[in-house]
Amino acid sequence: MPSPTLHPDVAHLSFLLGTWKGSGKGEYPTIEPFTFTEETVFGHVGKPFLTFVQRTKDAAGLPLHTESGYLRPVGAERAEFVVSIPSGIVELAAGTVEENRLVLSSTGVHRTATAKEVSATERAYEVDGDTLHWTLAMAAMGQPMTHHLSGELTRS
Amino acid sequence: MPSPTLHPDVAHLSFLLGTWKGSGKGEYPTIEPFTFTEETVFGHVGKPFLTFVQRTKDAAGLPLHTESGYLRPVGAERAEFVVSIPSGIVELAAGTVEENRLVLSSTGVHRTATAKEVSATERAYEVDGDTLHWTLAMAAMGQPMTHHLSGELTRS
Repeated sequence: MPSPTLHPDVAHLSFLLGTWKGSGKGEYPTIEPFTFTEETVFGHVGKPFLTFVQRTKDAAGLPLHTESGYLRPVGAERAEFVVSIPSGIVELAAGTVEENRLVLSSTGVHRTATAKEVSATERAYEVDGDTLHWTLAMAAMGQPMTHHLSGELTRS
Repeated sequence: MPSPTLHPDVAHLSFLLGTWKGSGKGEYPTIEPFTFTEETVFGHVGKPFLTFVQRTKDAAGLPLHTESGYLRPVGAERAEFVVSIPSGIVELAAGTVEENRLVLSSTGVHRTATAKEVSATERAYEVDGDTLHWTLAMAAMGQPMTHHLSGELTRS
């Protein structure tokens, strides 16, 4: 299948496109610090959104975290984000795009009846050449907004 | 990579596992009826949830709808569902599993600032051998809960 033409409405998000592989680390006041390997894919199908899938694994190669969702352009300098997480959480977020940096703050975090409490997140993705740095902070488990995860990935 | 062992907590959902291909049709009081081809994948990674991705295309092979999310077991007869949709919508749902039939009612539908109004959904997935029938009803755009989509897919 030929690759579709990028929709012009997502031109300002195109710096994220690719399959990104690397590693990251996590910490939070309620848990022991940990490390992981990661593959994240930002894709598109020619429509005015980007697809997003993140998968992380532990040192033994066993799956840790995954989440999937979509980035929606809002004009040429902003974006919305929707994502679902198998822990029973869905998030809505919105934020700004400045050159090669996307910063998102949650506008809603909603949970199924059996999910753990997460009340807000802040995500940042910054691309420098073929390197993607990302961070995630969250307010969860009674803690205020606190740094939780970071990763450094290479476009493959 | 060898296929992981199915987590026992999702045994009652395993009838959904597979890559399903086929076609469907849509209707709603606010739109013209339409048809589509579809590929839906229910997968797993050995953890206590199923992954879900749906992709539909029009007669010319161009992408129409897509959504992705996760099914979470709740005991041996119930499940929760989280899903995100590139139109700027996230859904939470819960429901029952009876033999080869999963029926989900939304417990929350949440939207970004630019998304269209959808207030509730009802989804049903029923497997007969290698055939999956699914339906989706929704309350949206001021309409009460109304049939919207159906598909008939074959496990490949």
